[in-house]
Amino acid sequence: MARRAPENPIITPAHVAPSRADFEVVGVFNPAAIAHGDHVVLLLRVAEAPKVAPNEVAAPVWERGEIVVKRWRRDAPGLDLSDARAISIDGATWLTSISHLRVARSRDGVHFEIDDRPTFAPAHPLEAFGVEDPRLTFVAGEYIMNYTAVSDAGIATGIATSRDLRNWERRGIAFAPNNRDVTIFPEQIAGKYAALHRPMPDGIGQPAIWYATSWDLVRWGDHRFVAGRRAGAWDDLKIGGGAVPFRVDRGWLAIYHGVTREPLTYSLGALLLDEHDPSRVLARSREPILKPEAPYEMRGFFGNVVFTCGVVPSGDVVKVYYGAADGVTALAELSLADIMRGLA
Amino acid sequence: MARRAPENPIITPAHVAPSRADFEVVGVFNPAAIAHGDHVVLLLRVAEAPKVAPNEVAAPVWERGEIVVKRWRRDAPGLDLSDARAISIDGATWLTSISHLRVARSRDGVHFEIDDRPTFAPAHPLEAFGVEDPRLTFVAGEYIMNYTAVSDAGIATGIATSRDLRNWERRGIAFAPNNRDVTIFPEQIAGKYAALHRPMPDGIGQPAIWYATSWDLVRWGDHRFVAGRRAGAWDDLKIGGGAVPFRVDRGWLAIYHGVTREPLTYSLGALLLDEHDPSRVLARSREPILKPEAPYEMRGFFGNVVFTCGVVPSGDVVKVYYGAADGVTALAELSLADIMRGLA
Repeated sequence: MARRAPENPIITPAHVAPSRADFEVVGVFNPAAIAHGDHVVLLLRVAEAPKVAPNEVAAPVWERGEIVVKRWRRDAPGLDLSDARAISIDGATWLTSISHLRVARSRDGVHFEIDDRPTFAPAHPLEAFGVEDPRLTFVAGEYIMNYTAVSDAGIATGIATSRDLRNWERRGIAFAPNNRDVTIFPEQIAGKYAALHRPMPDGIGQPAIWYATSWDLVRWGDHRFVAGRRAGAWDDLKIGGGAVPFRVDRGWLAIYHGVTREPLTYSLGALLLDEHDPSRVLARSREPILKPEAPYEMRGFFGNVVFTCGVVPSGDVVKVYYGAADGVTALAELSLADIMRGLA
Repeated sequence: MARRAPENPIITPAHVAPSRADFEVVGVFNPAAIAHGDHVVLLLRVAEAPKVAPNEVAAPVWERGEIVVKRWRRDAPGLDLSDARAISIDGATWLTSISHLRVARSRDGVHFEIDDRPTFAPAHPLEAFGVEDPRLTFVAGEYIMNYTAVSDAGIATGIATSRDLRNWERRGIAFAPNNRDVTIFPEQIAGKYAALHRPMPDGIGQPAIWYATSWDLVRWGDHRFVAGRRAGAWDDLKIGGGAVPFRVDRGWLAIYHGVTREPLTYSLGALLLDEHDPSRVLARSREPILKPEAPYEMRGFFGNVVFTCGVVPSGDVVKVYYGAADGVTALAELSLADIMRGLA
């Protein structure tokens, strides 16, 4: 049984200072989470949108060192606003918000101090539409962050490393588009970095979870198929990585997201992966371990979504930090024993 | 000006023995090409289909060590045959043919002796629908082949190596789906293997040519965007790699394919890439260097297609081996000086 924090949602846009006066924070969600000494550190995805007049729409885009705002009148010919997240015109697509990453720290894991300024913001043409959905791992003496780099070239995954969680060195694009929901294991396996990732083939193929290894964090390969959607189940439309996997008695536990239709619903489940070869699935959640039920999960910018990028396990308690309805950050405590019992 | 071989198409299905009596060869196209001593060696993509009764359709699929044939009556409920290459039923898609690779050798570069047997055939779940569109490179003492590995998990790119072009060792899946049209440079650059590849994002992003590097041929990254489609040009719909790049005075010349609509047409052009940083485009063909004009290019299994996986350059002459209409193999000799003059 998931125990949602009574304080939920624990972080909302009202808690976050915009990065500039002409922007407003429209979402703070899908944070990376990691234990750091006696603190929990979150790397929040902060989505901002330009303030607009009632008769206009705007798209923030990083270009040559700064974020510029493109504006259109709502009645401009050919403007397509059918997806609230995007503006399409003249064969091009723009996003209505742009995300950066920001540090939040907490002693109790519930009440967070949020930095006033971005820690990691778009700074490259392949990040022109934003940096999103980070995951944090600590391996071999350094913090490793992967993040979704979004641009008109596609949705790719970048890698950055840090000693202090605030100063980040970009290491390059590690997974070519479209590929997101990467989670790097907290230990090297057989001498190599290891990760789950989620390529997104269409036509032949389906979005699914794959496994890859790397010598240097930037170059990944020896790709293996791990798990796909399951017909008739809560994850029958598509699946992808969620939290960074963590060790359990019988292997690695990877909390992932699964999607079903009618209504379109993002829930969480778990994969139990082989300790020595994490491309092998030993067991999988029969039912979701967390699904949208609370009002802040069912309604929002994009309703019926719970989506995690990071958990903090401690004994039998797994603190799951998650984005709810693509707008706010929430916390649920799950019992590891319950999760394990739900595997088949 | 392209000079097509008078013998064109130089290799057709009639020249190729099927791999088993109940199959027929339906295409021999998109060969890798490489100079090997005083021979030209092609690695042909041979597409075979099961022989069927008039009232049935069939899909060949590799499963647990052998190719099995799935059969349906043409009037089976729910069968979708609208794409001649595929059979869709019950939410699954199958292909009507399966490809393997076969060696062909020639002294004059025009008349080829073709092996009786496959050299490289599907042998892995990620190759269940076939191995396609190989490219050959010789680097650091070994032949490197990349090939498209097709399965219901998507369209990925695998790597194999050989000392003799006939005995191949699989090295793993190097590019996750969907990613094809990989070409590995014939020299290491700054100590690493280098390649162009063609990820296929949809929604945000477009199929485009990217650059990546590798220490070990299997793990690739530090992905950089190289070139995309050009509005209003002969390559305005999508582009992708073609032949393995080769050295020219001013850098690397990469012959690629570009696609336009109405009618859907695959043509060839060239990219001139920086010698030390091949992710930098110095110039690009204003017009196609080869486009479908001959009858065997305009009509066939998939008409209006010229598509190369390999060229043999020698002085001013570039022998372009190419698949025509997804059915046969043809040869055209192009002048390097002409190609260079057509760059802008």
